[in-house]
Amino acid sequence: MCQLLGMNANTPTDLAFSFTGFARRAGGTADHVDGWGVAFFEGRGLRHFVDHQRALDSPVAELIRRYPIKSRNVIAHIRKATQGEVNLANCHPFVRELWGRYWVFAHNGDLKDFRPRLHAGFHPVGTTDSEHAFCWLMQELAKSHAGVPSVAELTLTLRELAAHIAPHGSFNFLLSNGQALWAHASTQLHYIERRHPFTVAQLSDEELSVDFASCTTASDRVAVIATAPLTRNERWTPLAPHVLRAFVDGQCLAH
Amino acid sequence: MCQLLGMNANTPTDLAFSFTGFARRAGGTADHVDGWGVAFFEGRGLRHFVDHQRALDSPVAELIRRYPIKSRNVIAHIRKATQGEVNLANCHPFVRELWGRYWVFAHNGDLKDFRPRLHAGFHPVGTTDSEHAFCWLMQELAKSHAGVPSVAELTLTLRELAAHIAPHGSFNFLLSNGQALWAHASTQLHYIERRHPFTVAQLSDEELSVDFASCTTASDRVAVIATAPLTRNERWTPLAPHVLRAFVDGQCLAH
Repeated sequence: MCQLLGMNANTPTDLAFSFTGFARRAGGTADHVDGWGVAFFEGRGLRHFVDHQRALDSPVAELIRRYPIKSRNVIAHIRKATQGEVNLANCHPFVRELWGRYWVFAHNGDLKDFRPRLHAGFHPVGTTDSEHAFCWLMQELAKSHAGVPSVAELTLTLRELAAHIAPHGSFNFLLSNGQALWAHASTQLHYIERRHPFTVAQLSDEELSVDFASCTTASDRVAVIATAPLTRNERWTPLAPHVLRAFVDGQCLAH
Repeated sequence: MCQLLGMNANTPTDLAFSFTGFARRAGGTADHVDGWGVAFFEGRGLRHFVDHQRALDSPVAELIRRYPIKSRNVIAHIRKATQGEVNLANCHPFVRELWGRYWVFAHNGDLKDFRPRLHAGFHPVGTTDSEHAFCWLMQELAKSHAGVPSVAELTLTLRELAAHIAPHGSFNFLLSNGQALWAHASTQLHYIERRHPFTVAQLSDEELSVDFASCTTASDRVAVIATAPLTRNERWTPLAPHVLRAFVDGQCLAH
């Protein structure tokens, strides 16, 4: 299994604090050591980092902890290989372009017997069940809409598509096109929305705390989504199984 | 205008020496300061770094200089904006997936009145003429072959496609799918093939030299392609205008 981390915010925000705790699980507090990756949207542009080394001591992960890249939509993943060998092509998140936008996808879970035929323009480069499922999602999205639809329409379509895949195993995933971040849980995924008044948060996986009041403005809103809660003094909400939720501007939209 | 750097080798090789000289041109010895990027293939996988900061002092470029990522196919680009604003979405190299392989493209030059209709699965995310041309190349490649063809066949197809675009301006470009690296010059592009016996090379843009004999084996072969020669004590070969050349295993294939 793997672990997921996502962030959606209404203002460009850095992920350094959350990523520090998350990366501890890649060889420190947990054994997700078979590669990792993170993608940051900046406007329509994307920074995409993957590494087959474990995030705990990867030089690229060290850069992410030290260089506060600010983004409104981020997806990160640390991998414990179940299907597909340990190599760069199998590191999440995966990226494709559709309708002139980048789409980023990361998955936690196992899919059994889900190898639908890919007859259109999206094919996996690596050998994971996850990338195959992502390519199918992209193919079906492309067939469902002529151009990039509204977030509300996309949410409806993605909900139908996720329901096709979910019966094949555990399908916790994060997906973003830079406008919104979608999260789907089968087994475990938690989120927190931070807004004014901001408080001090303490990481679960390392002796580190941050006073968000000192680095935010009253209008900032940030949602963080993670496999397991990253802080020990905040209340994280579990995502209900088999429900796809959309996060926009740091808020989880009503179902 | 921009500058290009490519490497094709028969064994995974790091780019640190060449990149150090190349990055000096992004604010040191030249003024290509409007972003940069580099993509390294590792097998079928890809590491892709872009930054809208200049490569001379970008923290991401510092990582590339210090962390010797080994690859058999690399494409790098430093940008001086002519079309399209300075932002991450407009940084080369651009990446798309076709036939289950990543394709990486970087362009130096200006294309006038080349905005063909993109009717298939490839659309630009940014606003550059370069990314539009890349999407058209991918679209036409996808139409020309049912699956990934041989390097020889790809070279023939790419030669025809490049000939369609080149009359619209200057079209120096590098393209790779991880199996080969293709280079096309309209105005300037130079290459060098290094092989046994290896010698000492001295950078043109910085007081730095490396003795390749100390870090290679007798069977290594490495080709480096750059807008302008990167070293001052080696003989670089200019690419003839309007000729597309393929580099495989560190060698420029016969035309």
